[in-house]
Amino acid sequence: MTTNKATRSKDVTLVGAGLAGCLLATLLGRRGYDVTVLERRADPRRAGAERGRSINLALSARGLDALERVGLREEALAAALPMRGRMVHPVTGSPNFQSYSADGTRAINSISRSGLNEALLDTAEKTPGVTVLFESRVEAVDLERGVVTVARPDGVQELAASIVLACDGAYSATRRAVQFREGTNYAQDFLEHGYKELTIPARDGDFAIDPTALHIWARGGSMMIALPNLDKSFTCTLFWPKDGPGGLSSLSTAAQVRAHFAREYPDVVDLMPTLAEDYLANPVGSLVTVRAWPWTAHGAAASVALVGDAAHAIVPFYGQGANCAFEDAIEIDTLLDRHDGDWSRVLPAYEKARKPNTDAIAAMALQNFVEMRDLVNSRVHRTKNTAMHALERWFPSLVVSRYELVSFSTVPYAEVLRRTRRQGRVLTTIGALGATALGAIAARGLRRR
Amino acid sequence: MTTNKATRSKDVTLVGAGLAGCLLATLLGRRGYDVTVLERRADPRRAGAERGRSINLALSARGLDALERVGLREEALAAALPMRGRMVHPVTGSPNFQSYSADGTRAINSISRSGLNEALLDTAEKTPGVTVLFESRVEAVDLERGVVTVARPDGVQELAASIVLACDGAYSATRRAVQFREGTNYAQDFLEHGYKELTIPARDGDFAIDPTALHIWARGGSMMIALPNLDKSFTCTLFWPKDGPGGLSSLSTAAQVRAHFAREYPDVVDLMPTLAEDYLANPVGSLVTVRAWPWTAHGAAASVALVGDAAHAIVPFYGQGANCAFEDAIEIDTLLDRHDGDWSRVLPAYEKARKPNTDAIAAMALQNFVEMRDLVNSRVHRTKNTAMHALERWFPSLVVSRYELVSFSTVPYAEVLRRTRRQGRVLTTIGALGATALGAIAARGLRRR
Repeated sequence: MTTNKATRSKDVTLVGAGLAGCLLATLLGRRGYDVTVLERRADPRRAGAERGRSINLALSARGLDALERVGLREEALAAALPMRGRMVHPVTGSPNFQSYSADGTRAINSISRSGLNEALLDTAEKTPGVTVLFESRVEAVDLERGVVTVARPDGVQELAASIVLACDGAYSATRRAVQFREGTNYAQDFLEHGYKELTIPARDGDFAIDPTALHIWARGGSMMIALPNLDKSFTCTLFWPKDGPGGLSSLSTAAQVRAHFAREYPDVVDLMPTLAEDYLANPVGSLVTVRAWPWTAHGAAASVALVGDAAHAIVPFYGQGANCAFEDAIEIDTLLDRHDGDWSRVLPAYEKARKPNTDAIAAMALQNFVEMRDLVNSRVHRTKNTAMHALERWFPSLVVSRYELVSFSTVPYAEVLRRTRRQGRVLTTIGALGATALGAIAARGLRRR
Repeated sequence: MTTNKATRSKDVTLVGAGLAGCLLATLLGRRGYDVTVLERRADPRRAGAERGRSINLALSARGLDALERVGLREEALAAALPMRGRMVHPVTGSPNFQSYSADGTRAINSISRSGLNEALLDTAEKTPGVTVLFESRVEAVDLERGVVTVARPDGVQELAASIVLACDGAYSATRRAVQFREGTNYAQDFLEHGYKELTIPARDGDFAIDPTALHIWARGGSMMIALPNLDKSFTCTLFWPKDGPGGLSSLSTAAQVRAHFAREYPDVVDLMPTLAEDYLANPVGSLVTVRAWPWTAHGAAASVALVGDAAHAIVPFYGQGANCAFEDAIEIDTLLDRHDGDWSRVLPAYEKARKPNTDAIAAMALQNFVEMRDLVNSRVHRTKNTAMHALERWFPSLVVSRYELVSFSTVPYAEVLRRTRRQGRVLTTIGALGATALGAIAARGLRRR
């Protein structure tokens, strides 16, 4: 890192008052930093949540660990619905439940994104030293002069800045302002699949389907999932190819939508009274993986670092986007301690520590999309899942499933990937010796319990 | 492609008056299009060439084929120096020559980039319908309104535009204006290596080293090359790691520079009288590979397409950057014929036809860097090269080297890659049966001629 006059700055310009931004602003404020948070949108507590963001998300161990550090863990859990496993819905026949953990007790937590964001925003604003400026869009970042140009309702302003933390998401304006420097690698890769959200409302004042599971309708090339909400509705998300046969754009009339759902999702079509209207009205979202390197850039007067989705947006199939972004914030907080507030050591250490882990979760999230869609072969998967959990119970020091390590531990993602790849090879070897026998034994083991 | 009102437009806004831009403007002008060329820089014929671009380039079959279509082939060849092979300079011992073609007659042509650009600019400006506006920097592109915002010396203007062709290079401002659309994949990958240009001036009114070869000083992790210029000088280019031991930043005094070159490039150090001054004064360039997809974007009022480096900047190790960009222009010209000027068919057909080819040359250019640096093992390589050329002479319908297909044919790059990969497997098999014997036979075959 070029040492610039920002090295010991106690002033931080933080862009983006989303989940990671609010958490990081709070952590920095508590350390005595003066944090100016620039948020492009209006205050969501007054303006309502922006359309087009996902409605809920799955909070797991990493996210809860982060929230605990700002005293929000219990509040978040109180507003969340635990999901202890996946409920896989075949086209015909009844759904089957697969526990996420060997002992069946651990859960990921369905929580409202906007609710969680507002709680974090309240916490950030209450922290001395933190100021949040809404409707403040970053237009340019000049690291040589130490200036961030911001468009606000009352005009364009230049704000002095020495440390700029870009928490402004996959489409980060801050990143765009610096990413074209020579030597800055960058990639954005979109899936052919898009997503669209639908609703299963409460029925007779109660959940229409089991609220203790994450529901999956796996259909090979595409899928639908559903997560429960506090108001006893479910938010369903379609992950379908954007175009082509069976794609999101292939249904254009209410009759087509209803016929398609009656054929592909027969067990829930009748639980979705506004299905066709919602389908035709709701936008199609994109699924992007962002890779950047380095995450930091340095000029004579200022340094910038990318945080969360701005550095490493991932696809949502491991439910780790927010959890992972929180970990970035925790890493910066920890390193400020270790390096005694010296940004010239904190920022390089931050990117170096986090990059292998965010690369790992990016890869695992992409792999899990294939795996989830393949749950269509649910019998095979169920046997595998059961066998895996049996092994975990019998050899807990040797075998833990990837899903458990990602969701129920804070083991670094890169280590999870390494460890479960090794495990995968061992299991493949065992499999060659008799996967079917093992499955049978495991299933028997389960029934004995 | 969204059909917009640009479908049959006869007005084209072309960004960038570099090599590909001028060629394409000329081709379009000849078809009766009104072409406005927006060039960020001042007129190079008055202002002199911009620093930091490479001084010369190797024009080969594809480039010559393109120039022929605008009547510039002979003029270009007259201003170029043919290089019939590579001259590989070891640290000790004398250099050895490796012919590029089996018959030893074919050559790639060292030509001044600025000279070629000015010839193309003259040709474009002479073409009816083509207007070149210098010092005109694209700031924004609005495809919905059909407007390009341009910063000119007399202020910022909005120009109406329906078809925008972005020929503005690896750091394309036009691409930046549209690349953040959802569904637009993009990647920029920089090598750890940078480049720096040096000079071997004419000595006693003549070339100081053989002007009929491309000179290579391969040193494993790094290398230097030299191409001849019309004024009997050579432009040398160092391709070294930017940082670390042996990197471009590791030499910071004249004494260090001279000592390093005396050790690593002993046979030419005395031919470079201004070596240390040049080394310390000249900038370090970056080597980037750009990948984008799609190359086109469409709004209600305008469409944009990326052309040349803006769509697919590649590293220079196959000498194909300009040659490949010219092919893009030829493809668009050909497709305008085939689809009767219907841009809604031309642009998708263009990107679809070119993408596999530019991906192939991007991959081959990266591979060739490793291969060139490995010429350090020149004996092994010489044997391989000799054996290859012997095979080519004996089985001309079966075997042609990748280098020949890339440089001396207009076979699509993707086909070159496919064909030579297949060949590679065959040769590996032959190799397993006795590479040494084959080399010996081939060498004998050569000597007999």
